[in-house]
Amino acid sequence: MPRRVITLTTDFGLRDPYVAEMKAVILGIYSEATIVDISHEVEKYNIGMAAFILASAAPYFPADSIHVAVVDPGVGTKRKAIIVQKGDTFFTGPDNGVLSLAIDETEETMHVREIENKKLILPNISNTFHGRDVFAPVAGYLAIGIPLEEFGPEISNLVRPRFSSVTERNGKIVGEIAYVDGFGNVITNIKEHKLSNVKKGMAVNVKLGNTSMNLKFCGAYDEVANGSLLALIGSHDFLEISQNRGNAAKVLKIRTGEKVIVTQSR
Amino acid sequence: MPRRVITLTTDFGLRDPYVAEMKAVILGIYSEATIVDISHEVEKYNIGMAAFILASAAPYFPADSIHVAVVDPGVGTKRKAIIVQKGDTFFTGPDNGVLSLAIDETEETMHVREIENKKLILPNISNTFHGRDVFAPVAGYLAIGIPLEEFGPEISNLVRPRFSSVTERNGKIVGEIAYVDGFGNVITNIKEHKLSNVKKGMAVNVKLGNTSMNLKFCGAYDEVANGSLLALIGSHDFLEISQNRGNAAKVLKIRTGEKVIVTQSR
Amino acid sequence: MPRRVITLTTDFGLRDPYVAEMKAVILGIYSEATIVDISHEVEKYNIGMAAFILASAAPYFPADSIHVAVVDPGVGTKRKAIIVQKGDTFFTGPDNGVLSLAIDETEETMHVREIENKKLILPNISNTFHGRDVFAPVAGYLAIGIPLEEFGPEISNLVRPRFSSVTERNGKIVGEIAYVDGFGNVITNIKEHKLSNVKKGMAVNVKLGNTSMNLKFCGAYDEVANGSLLALIGSHDFLEISQNRGNAAKVLKIRTGEKVIVTQSR
Repeated sequence: MPRRVITLTTDFGLRDPYVAEMKAVILGIYSEATIVDISHEVEKYNIGMAAFILASAAPYFPADSIHVAVVDPGVGTKRKAIIVQKGDTFFTGPDNGVLSLAIDETEETMHVREIENKKLILPNISNTFHGRDVFAPVAGYLAIGIPLEEFGPEISNLVRPRFSSVTERNGKIVGEIAYVDGFGNVITNIKEHKLSNVKKGMAVNVKLGNTSMNLKFCGAYDEVANGSLLALIGSHDFLEISQNRGNAAKVLKIRTGEKVIVTQSR
Repeated sequence: MPRRVITLTTDFGLRDPYVAEMKAVILGIYSEATIVDISHEVEKYNIGMAAFILASAAPYFPADSIHVAVVDPGVGTKRKAIIVQKGDTFFTGPDNGVLSLAIDETEETMHVREIENKKLILPNISNTFHGRDVFAPVAGYLAIGIPLEEFGPEISNLVRPRFSSVTERNGKIVGEIAYVDGFGNVITNIKEHKLSNVKKGMAVNVKLGNTSMNLKFCGAYDEVANGSLLALIGSHDFLEISQNRGNAAKVLKIRTGEKVIVTQSR
Repeated sequence: MPRRVITLTTDFGLRDPYVAEMKAVILGIYSEATIVDISHEVEKYNIGMAAFILASAAPYFPADSIHVAVVDPGVGTKRKAIIVQKGDTFFTGPDNGVLSLAIDETEETMHVREIENKKLILPNISNTFHGRDVFAPVAGYLAIGIPLEEFGPEISNLVRPRFSSVTERNGKIVGEIAYVDGFGNVITNIKEHKLSNVKKGMAVNVKLGNTSMNLKFCGAYDEVANGSLLALIGSHDFLEISQNRGNAAKVLKIRTGEKVIVTQSR
């Protein structure tokens, strides 16, 4: 049997011992685990950023992977701890929206349980670190085949933070900045199919705040000169504004959540 | 047989090739190793910080794990290279205190050897990188079952840096700041049992330098308003001063090693 | 059969989902992979830095390892995607020099192929992320034993960026700064054997820009007082300028690529 993958997405950073403690607990239950870090550099307490990162990476993993996401400012309070099963894939984390983008698109085969069975979490539960005390052991027990039903009761009505959607009016596509990556690529929430009128090599007009720019709609970063801005469809099929061999977000002083309006240039 | 875990704790950072070279050497000896990074972001040369991080994480790992810790400003000089066995767990690193907190509490079954056998380290030893040339191969050979006796002679009198202890006088508990984590949680060296008089929901008085604060003694971060300071017992049973969804260390301008005085408020 | 090692060297950073997506694709093809991160903190677009880091670490890995290096500002353009086989070791990445230092020294048994077989890469190839869409699947298929010939045609004339070489004139050794590590150690491109006249404990004169220094040629960092500068042979056999328990690069304001002139002091 192939070794099962367990992924981790947190805002814990890599200096502190916290991530290692989660891995230690998982390996104590399932010594064959292949543990993959998706990111531990999520901005502290930024549930939306973790949700975006997890949703980007999760589809590339084997279908029977187990994804653990812990950005959890409400740890120790009444917020629920949940497991979501979608097909053969499990997701576990706090019920605060951190899993919502990864599980959002279709829900046909989704099962959700609240974690309540004290035998499947650590014996001494802190009020400050459920990543180690709750979600890590749950991932380990899921990986060795403990059935979903044993973890707790079925629930519905998950917390769903409202992430803004894309609208179109008068030929304008209105979206927002979903993520700025480490290269300074400004990733919008506008999917490729919304831009079906725009052809490679044409220009698009992008309005951010009071700044309006006509950008070449490229197939690759290097189609414009070094230091030039461009628009293209990034590796997750979203419209991106980038600077060739530079950092568009710095140049444009852009942050996540800002509104973006896109029109085909004439 | 379950795959054996080898952990790494260093001040090498993640940009340079050094950590990968240690892993390469380990995998060359024991290809089945599950290598877990505890931290490579220890402040350069900060033996005490590495000792704290290792001591926090080590207890959560499987009992037969092998822990390698390399913060080693004296590399290439007369400081000893050691292996400590405590129960089924091995620790290896320079004899400069980096292992001391992890092995400190009880010593009933502790065995210590100096690494001297040239057949169990790399053939060409640099004077600057014993993490790769000495401690990585030692971890690999321990993992495949080479008996402790073969590595070198038994020794005693390990280097024990004096970490300050907690004292109580006139109802005051005097300790110090042991660690500041990435969330800005200010972790003291005062264990939960020292605070047996303090009940959840009560206030404690915390004095740091000339600043005296009355803080709510909470069970979870989210029991006070966003941005408020609080006291609580953290996930390693130490008293912590935190700011809900903020960074207490920044607000309070606190650093590791500072004195802290705790009294029950009246 | 021992599990095969696949290493990753990129400028992707650890916050974004990109590294995890590469690992996901590899594990989907070869679930037994031992994936080792060499570095993801290469300066963005800095091909030379990635080349140096990969060349430093690669020799320590098992002979049948597969090394993936992706610093790829020309992604999506005409630059080739290649596989290099040298002995039992495979290297894959863009043909822009990122592999050049690792494969440089001897080429007796080197085979090079351009990646063209669409069945051995992902079905939908982005123009912005060949790390995930091309090089990760190639590494996975190499690991499970797909023969090199199946990936594409043999090619020659790899891109070879000119890294400067070391010269000697009038008893002076002229080289350059190859790398500055996280400790601030200033690593030159001058190999130990060039300094055969210099003995441990003697002084060497090092000229950097307009600054000329006489430094003790040490065997270990701790042979000079804390805060003192020194010269020594580092763990990859290059001449290094270091500061004991300090950061020489900061003190000397040195950057990669600067010229260095070394003479034996009298």
